[in-house]
Amino acid sequence: MTIMVPVGVSARHIHLSLAHIDILFGAGYQLTSFRDLSQPGQYAANEMVSIVGPKGRFDKVRILGPARGATQIEISRTDAFALGINPPVRESGHIEGTPGLKVIGPQGEVELEQGVIVAARHIHFHTKDAEQWGIADKQMLRVKVNGERPLIFENVIARVSEQYALDMHIDTDEGNAAGVKTGDQAEILD
Amino acid sequence: MTIMVPVGVSARHIHLSLAHIDILFGAGYQLTSFRDLSQPGQYAANEMVSIVGPKGRFDKVRILGPARGATQIEISRTDAFALGINPPVRESGHIEGTPGLKVIGPQGEVELEQGVIVAARHIHFHTKDAEQWGIADKQMLRVKVNGERPLIFENVIARVSEQYALDMHIDTDEGNAAGVKTGDQAEILD
Repeated sequence: MTIMVPVGVSARHIHLSLAHIDILFGAGYQLTSFRDLSQPGQYAANEMVSIVGPKGRFDKVRILGPARGATQIEISRTDAFALGINPPVRESGHIEGTPGLKVIGPQGEVELEQGVIVAARHIHFHTKDAEQWGIADKQMLRVKVNGERPLIFENVIARVSEQYALDMHIDTDEGNAAGVKTGDQAEILD
Repeated sequence: MTIMVPVGVSARHIHLSLAHIDILFGAGYQLTSFRDLSQPGQYAANEMVSIVGPKGRFDKVRILGPARGATQIEISRTDAFALGINPPVRESGHIEGTPGLKVIGPQGEVELEQGVIVAARHIHFHTKDAEQWGIADKQMLRVKVNGERPLIFENVIARVSEQYALDMHIDTDEGNAAGVKTGDQAEILD
């Protein structure tokens, strides 16, 4: 059985808490949707911010909505060198002990104490897909990506939920190293 | 038999022709060595230039010496997006039909018509190493990199010469995707 999954290459982005949206965009501000993402209910917002580190900054960093309990910034290792920080590779939501950055919006700025990660590559499975293929939540998978620069990613984390749609998430370093872009297909080897 | 090779992660850099060194640094200028590289006779120069594309620029781009017959710029895919150009993945020296960039030195500037590539990952073997391990020039290898983000690179080109020292060359996207740095070890699988 060959199991193919679509690839989504994530550029640097930020998830904001409601409190930080208030500071950056004004009290009570509501993010607006630029386009829907692969995961149900998730969207790329029209709104963007700047992120500033000790050695560099990026402007026009896309906000992903809706608001979350804690602000989290996901960047590539390449971005991290340019910014001058050293975030760990982590699963989304695990931000304890990570570095921060300054975030600048049109109405204010926030000095984050933590929240910057390099996202660990993972595949979202709907529960039915996972059951059909015998894949368990948190299982580590090997995935072949047949782009211009073929490679096999090991330690790809399976994340299973009824809230998820099938999609493999890698960052721009990983996408570029494989020569793939969003919408390409990858094959789960085992 | 386990075959291990050292990894070298190449940041963006430029090789210059003598004619371009004359324009960028002044007639008859001689590059000076900052440090030796893994390949015999090759060095990172103290001298640096700026490279400028339609969408962005990088300053302090390291020159690798000695001078070559044709100027060549090696960047990552991430760099290419930032500069606003779309160079192909190529072996060093194969620059026909590639895009150019503007190069700025302290004494002048050059508008390259071609010469920018994303370097195809490869391993330099001394002839004796290749013979011992049964590896032929141009052979495609699979190489496992056990960094923080383990992966297997396919289509790694073997380059065999008596002028070479054992070293695997990948770019920063590939190094970051694997979580490895220069001096780490990789394993040739087949």
